Amino acid sequence: MITLHTWTTPNGRKPLILLEELGVPYETVPVDIGNGKQFEPEFLKIAPNNKIPAMVDDNADDEADGGPLSLFESGAILTYLADRHGKFLAPSGAARWQATQWLHWQIGGLGPMLGQLGFFSKQDDAFALERFIKEADRLLAVLDTQLAASQYVAGDEYTIADIACYPWIMAASERLQEPLAGALGKPNLQRWLGLVGARPAVQAGMKWKPRGA
Amino acid sequence: MITLHTWTTPNGRKPLILLEELGVPYETVPVDIGNGKQFEPEFLKIAPNNKIPAMVDDNADDEADGGPLSLFESGAILTYLADRHGKFLAPSGAARWQATQWLHWQIGGLGPMLGQLGFFSKQDDAFALERFIKEADRLLAVLDTQLAASQYVAGDEYTIADIACYPWIMAASERLQEPLAGALGKPNLQRWLGLVGARPAVQAGMKWKPRGA
Ligand SMILES: N[C@@H](CCC(=O)N[C@@H](CS)C(=O)NCC(=O)O)C(=O)O
Ligand SMILES: N[C@@H](CCC(=O)N[C@@H](CS)C(=O)NCC(=O)O)C(=O)O
Repeated sequence: MITLHTWTTPNGRKPLILLEELGVPYETVPVDIGNGKQFEPEFLKIAPNNKIPAMVDDNADDEADGGPLSLFESGAILTYLADRHGKFLAPSGAARWQATQWLHWQIGGLGPMLGQLGFFSKQDDAFALERFIKEADRLLAVLDTQLAASQYVAGDEYTIADIACYPWIMAASERLQEPLAGALGKPNLQRWLGLVGARPAVQAGMKWKPRGA
Repeated sequence: MITLHTWTTPNGRKPLILLEELGVPYETVPVDIGNGKQFEPEFLKIAPNNKIPAMVDDNADDEADGGPLSLFESGAILTYLADRHGKFLAPSGAARWQATQWLHWQIGGLGPMLGQLGFFSKQDDAFALERFIKEADRLLAVLDTQLAASQYVAGDEYTIADIACYPWIMAASERLQEPLAGALGKPNLQRWLGLVGARPAVQAGMKWKPRGA
């Protein structure tokens, strides 16, 4: 069984979407990062970087040399699950490397920069705010240009690169609409949001909430 | 032949180190990002995100369905080259996923946060500077703790996770010594810097300069 330690944030939703797409059974353990639960010793054992998501697969077989496999970093979790189930990431060839490249672009660029913009949009620091608006605008323009040339982020197939980007663009659409209106309104980005957002698994992952919340 | 578009920065040095480790022939094309060369149309064709490194492998065979394979994002390039040559990344099993997880940690955390710290260390913005010093300190402590438990970043083998982290820690040691002295001085980090820095391929990659410079 797969146990996903997660929360209702963009990085937390990525593996939820992929698990829904794959239709494999999984359990969730909510880690309320608004209340410091990411610093509890039990969680730090599997996620020493004190961030969600993290995953434990106690059925990983050969993957984990017998024992359960414990992983943090959403990009690593997406790649592991996609490879293990042979879906949403080609096993080899150009398609694999293009999806991997755009996944890394989300992990190293889009995510951290939208994250910093979210933070500074609530602070009194016009200089830093301006910096991250500019960088977010640039990244969204890069994505829109890519989506003008191809149906999905990494080509004409839906991959883990789409799954990685979608919750971030949705979070920006909800919380950063004001500074990013121009960039978010771009036509190819909007077309892609509609296309990806229509998938039942994406809707399920985006709706996930800890029980009782 | 592999053509690497790169520059003398941490992300630029990662694939240089790996290519030296692998001993495969390659050419370099210097992209002087201090002089805006990352915005030239020819470069943007292979690196639409206007950042180095980028790679073209015109001998990618099946990997590129016949044509040359063009890739950006250092993490994708490292993974591609390691997989293609069967070195510095296990083909499967827990070792593969642990290296992938720490690679993503470098790409999504250590790199962007040290990058922002480098930027704000030259600005007049004490609030943002404080934020990125704190985050860099935290990340370096995570790495030091990991290196207390294992010889290398992702376990007891040298992998692309070490290659991804090393040039960043070296850049911080040179340029951010003042704000990060405590974090950089930690014993396990220092042990690992010595171990990795002793490798001839690492030394060659760290020394690379564009011809004539
Ligand atoms: N690169 C990481 C980033 C993970 C991340 O930033 N998680 C946030 C929530 S979206 C978190 O757990 N923050 C809590 C904290 O930093 O203390 C990934 O992709 O998994
Ligand atoms: N996540 C990317 C980051 C690449 C990156 O930030 N490259 C910097 C140099 S270290 C760059 O080319 N900057 C030029 C620019 O942003 O215009 C990677 O790992 O390849």
